[in-house]
Amino acid sequence: MKKISIVGIGPGGLDEMTPKARRAIESAEVIAGYNTYIKLVGEIIGGKKIIGRAMMQEVERAQLAIQEALSGRNVAVISSGDAGVYGMAGLVLEMILDLPEKNRPQFEIIAGISAVNAAAAILGAPLMHDFAIISLSDLMTPWELIKKRVYSAAEADFVIALYNPKSKRRINQIIEVQQILLQFRKKNTPVGIVTNAGRENQKKIISTLENFTQEDINMFSLVIIGNSQTFIKENFIITPRGYSI
Amino acid sequence: MKKISIVGIGPGGLDEMTPKARRAIESAEVIAGYNTYIKLVGEIIGGKKIIGRAMMQEVERAQLAIQEALSGRNVAVISSGDAGVYGMAGLVLEMILDLPEKNRPQFEIIAGISAVNAAAAILGAPLMHDFAIISLSDLMTPWELIKKRVYSAAEADFVIALYNPKSKRRINQIIEVQQILLQFRKKNTPVGIVTNAGRENQKKIISTLENFTQEDINMFSLVIIGNSQTFIKENFIITPRGYSI
Repeated sequence: MKKISIVGIGPGGLDEMTPKARRAIESAEVIAGYNTYIKLVGEIIGGKKIIGRAMMQEVERAQLAIQEALSGRNVAVISSGDAGVYGMAGLVLEMILDLPEKNRPQFEIIAGISAVNAAAAILGAPLMHDFAIISLSDLMTPWELIKKRVYSAAEADFVIALYNPKSKRRINQIIEVQQILLQFRKKNTPVGIVTNAGRENQKKIISTLENFTQEDINMFSLVIIGNSQTFIKENFIITPRGYSI
Repeated sequence: MKKISIVGIGPGGLDEMTPKARRAIESAEVIAGYNTYIKLVGEIIGGKKIIGRAMMQEVERAQLAIQEALSGRNVAVISSGDAGVYGMAGLVLEMILDLPEKNRPQFEIIAGISAVNAAAAILGAPLMHDFAIISLSDLMTPWELIKKRVYSAAEADFVIALYNPKSKRRINQIIEVQQILLQFRKKNTPVGIVTNAGRENQKKIISTLENFTQEDINMFSLVIIGNSQTFIKENFIITPRGYSI
C-alpha cells in the first residue's frame, strides 16, 4: 500500500510550485486531475498513468485515485492553486477516512499558492486587510446564501475575492453582486481582474465597481473588490494595512 | 539601479518556498525582514547584508530596503506566508510608487503559501467553502470594526480564519469573538488551531467553539472556525464543498 498525495500545484508554472508539491508529483506513478491541470505540469509527468478524463466526475476520479494507491502505487491528486480551497482535498480526505483504518492508503495534503494570492501579487497588494473569499458557483450552494455572504462581506467592509465569477452559462450573478456592493461602496471602489494568473495569456485589468462587469471575465478569472480604504495607484491596487481613524 | 523583490517565503521551511521566491532571495545582496523570518531562510542568505533589527519599524525597514535598491543592490524584502496578506507588500509598493518614476527601483511581488493555507492543509480541509480572513490585531484597526466583521462573517456562515488571535498583551479579544460566534453557531462547531505551521514545534489542536479558547493559542497560532456544515473526522476537520439543502 502506497501513499496518496493531495497536491496544490499553485497557479500553473513550475516556478510557483513548492519543492514539496513537485516531489510528490515526480514520485507518483499515477496522477489524477483535470486535463487543464495535467497539462500545466506536463513537463514533470512524462510516462505516468493519468486519471483525468475531462468528463469524469470528481467523486469517480477520487475513487480511482484511492484504488490506485490501495493497489500499491503512489498517487498524486492535483488541483490548481491550493487543493484545500474549492479543490479536491476535502472530497479525497473524506473518502479515505471513510475506509476502515487498516484498509487506508497513507495520505498527505500539500498546500499550494492559492489563486487569490497569485492574483493579488499581480494586482499589487489588494489583500493587506481582512478579506472574504466567495465562489459565485451556485451548482452546490444556494444562490440566496451566496448573495447573503456578499451582503455581509460588503456591509462589514471586507475586501472581497470572487472565485468562479462568471461562466458561459452563468452571466447574471456577477451583475447582482455588483448591484449589492454598490449599495455599500463607492462607484470608484477599485476592482482588479486577473485571468489566467501565472499562466500563458495572463491578463490583468484594473477597473472600478461601477465598470468592472463590462470587462472580460470568464471562468479562469479571479476578481478582487477593494474595501473602503483601497486605492488605485498607477496600474496597481493597494489596500492599506491601517484604517484612517 | 537594481531590483527590489517583495517575497512571501511561505510557512517557513525551504520545502514550501517556491523556486521563484528562493531565486529572488538567493540573487539578492540585501535581505530585509523580521529576525524571525531571516532565521527561517538562514540557509540561503549566508554573507548577505541584513536589514532586520528586531525593534526597527516597518516603515523604516522599507525605506532602507528601497535606498539599498536605489544604491545599486538587489534587495529582497521578506514576509512569512504571503507578503500580500498582512505582510510588507502594500507598504513597500506604496513607497516605491510614491517616488518619481525615473527614481524608482524595479520591483516585483512574489506570492507565497499563506499561513491560512498551510494551517488548513495540516488540519485537513476546513477551507473548502467560502471563508473570511480576520486579524484580531487592533493596533491599526478599531476593535469595533473587527467585531463587526466577526458578526457579519458568523451570520453569513463563512468559515472564519483568525490571524493574530492572541498575544501576551491581547487576551480578551478571542473570548469576545467566541461569544459572538456562539450566538450563531453550535457549541460543537469544529475549531482548528495550528501553531508554528510548517516550522519546528508545529502543533495542531482540534477543538470546538465551546472549548477552543482554553487551548494554547499565541501569536504564532492560526485559528480556523468551521461553518454550519463543517465536521470533525478523527483528527481532521472537513468542510464539505456542497451544502446539504
